Amino acid sequence: MADLPASGADDRGPDVAHTAAPADDPMIGEVGEGRVLQTILARTPAGAYALLGPGDDAAVVAAPSGSVVVTTDTLVEGPDFRAAWSGGYDLGWKAAAVNLADVAAMGARPTALLVALAVPKDRRLSFIAALADGFRDACAGLAPGCAVVGGDLTVSATLTIAVTALGDLEGRAPVTRSGAGVGDDVAIAGEMGAAGHGLSVLFRRFHQDGVAVPVDPAALAEGESEAIAAQLRPAPPIGLGPVAAISGATAMMDVSDGLALDAGRMAEASGVTIALDSSALGAHPHRALAGGEDHALLATFPAGPLPPGFRRIGSVQAVVPGAPVLCDGEPVGPLGWDPYRDGGTDAR
Amino acid sequence: MADLPASGADDRGPDVAHTAAPADDPMIGEVGEGRVLQTILARTPAGAYALLGPGDDAAVVAAPSGSVVVTTDTLVEGPDFRAAWSGGYDLGWKAAAVNLADVAAMGARPTALLVALAVPKDRRLSFIAALADGFRDACAGLAPGCAVVGGDLTVSATLTIAVTALGDLEGRAPVTRSGAGVGDDVAIAGEMGAAGHGLSVLFRRFHQDGVAVPVDPAALAEGESEAIAAQLRPAPPIGLGPVAAISGATAMMDVSDGLALDAGRMAEASGVTIALDSSALGAHPHRALAGGEDHALLATFPAGPLPPGFRRIGSVQAVVPGAPVLCDGEPVGPLGWDPYRDGGTDAR
Repeated sequence: MADLPASGADDRGPDVAHTAAPADDPMIGEVGEGRVLQTILARTPAGAYALLGPGDDAAVVAAPSGSVVVTTDTLVEGPDFRAAWSGGYDLGWKAAAVNLADVAAMGARPTALLVALAVPKDRRLSFIAALADGFRDACAGLAPGCAVVGGDLTVSATLTIAVTALGDLEGRAPVTRSGAGVGDDVAIAGEMGAAGHGLSVLFRRFHQDGVAVPVDPAALAEGESEAIAAQLRPAPPIGLGPVAAISGATAMMDVSDGLALDAGRMAEASGVTIALDSSALGAHPHRALAGGEDHALLATFPAGPLPPGFRRIGSVQAVVPGAPVLCDGEPVGPLGWDPYRDGGTDAR
Repeated sequence: MADLPASGADDRGPDVAHTAAPADDPMIGEVGEGRVLQTILARTPAGAYALLGPGDDAAVVAAPSGSVVVTTDTLVEGPDFRAAWSGGYDLGWKAAAVNLADVAAMGARPTALLVALAVPKDRRLSFIAALADGFRDACAGLAPGCAVVGGDLTVSATLTIAVTALGDLEGRAPVTRSGAGVGDDVAIAGEMGAAGHGLSVLFRRFHQDGVAVPVDPAALAEGESEAIAAQLRPAPPIGLGPVAAISGATAMMDVSDGLALDAGRMAEASGVTIALDSSALGAHPHRALAGGEDHALLATFPAGPLPPGFRRIGSVQAVVPGAPVLCDGEPVGPLGWDPYRDGGTDAR
């Protein structure tokens, strides 16, 4: 590597790997696995549930109620994020948040994360540090007590962040997708459509000649900055998952692919039709129906008062064949995101 | 896709994606995520510990003893495997085996696997099916009762298989790397050096102009076929992990990077020196010291009779500064594998 003077390189974007960096910010391919691991571990304190943290063949995590909720979700550069838009901190935060939401959607409290990183050799150590900060802060901010307890590092041509999240049900039964009953209220906690709107702003305004370009904050209209933040650093209401379970939720899931698609999945799993009321879907009902990645919690409850943080958006009806989801009485087609069908990649 | 007649395409190698295939063997990019998931789930029955299997936001796995052992390890095309050498079945088997070994090395019994796949769009569905078969058979063959309980699918330019394994300690304390005591016997269960020898045969004989080429079975000398099998489908003695723990193992780990490097890690974690006896390392002591990926179980026990399946290879001594590992009294340098230092990629 040429011995160039330090620049303003930070953790953001592909430029980092190709521009000058401080002498103490080597590329991943220049340092041993030990130093990379050390960088991560120094930034991610053990959580309240870690009985044995990183450093051995495996970690040991408390499972006080005799079972463990477990889920895995991966972010891949290209289909899932663009380095021009998402810095290391954003990616760590989002990879944590989407997995925490899956645990919360079962009614469980998140206890631990495992992080499997596959990283191109020319990424800087500062990128890994920012990623670790994002994981730490998402745990602290969204699911206190949960922390990174282990992981794996390998080199890859494609930056890939595979996270596994564990959780504890605290003695309750898991809340599945299949328990919605006719007459139940349909409720939501968290954002609807903001993250999807943010993605559309990014593609419309910061994507040129098929390639993502960095966001220029000065070019953003009112509300667009918040929408982009919702896309890059979603903040689902993780703590409300256990609250919903305690309050008698009959079904629950997180909305990752848009309300239309995910409510349809819940309706099909439960053998019912979910009837939504557009006036309850905010100022932009179409965004709420089609926009994914907010990871709001969609839940059904026996009719009556809802737990704090949830608002009513519809009701559960007897199944209408061919129409798992209605909005204002009209069938809603699938409007969401299938990564196999839709997952385009661009140059980054 | 051109409507070409079916060929002999199987799940092996990069050619599959570019040659004709039966009409019922579409490319991943041609089918929805649902069909890919269905292909996997139809081949991987729920295990004995799955309280709630795939299909919801998360799975629920029994953790009878109130804690869960958890580990993650990733295989990336290029640094970790070549498609010309490893078919889908091999990859599923190996990705399961290496993770099961990490659970066993804590003295725990594996209970569940989660599989996060990032797959190029042009891979065939038959490749995914073979991968799922490999996962299923590795669980059934190496860790009965353990099964795939969940996973994630995304598209990626680089084939990446990130596995998380869970295990139960059955009420015992975890066996860490740090408990080896002076005077203990050092013992091993499983192969030493076979997988590393297999990799060297592959690189020496089936790697031309910097690119992996398919193995020609007719070109193999005696023993080479077994060595290649040990590399592609390692069979660590998973069930002996709990046996070692019950028998009072003071320290344990799996040998993934070669005995010299991994015994050094155990010695450093325990603050001792491990003295090996070359006459106990088989016909090829250097292969045993340097060759990784067998995932044998290295353990220390109070001096005396060893549990079934373990054989003595040395003893634990008071620390010799600068020499964590001795062989026949001489210091052994690190001879193993650091993916960040050594992880070359080739054209596939």
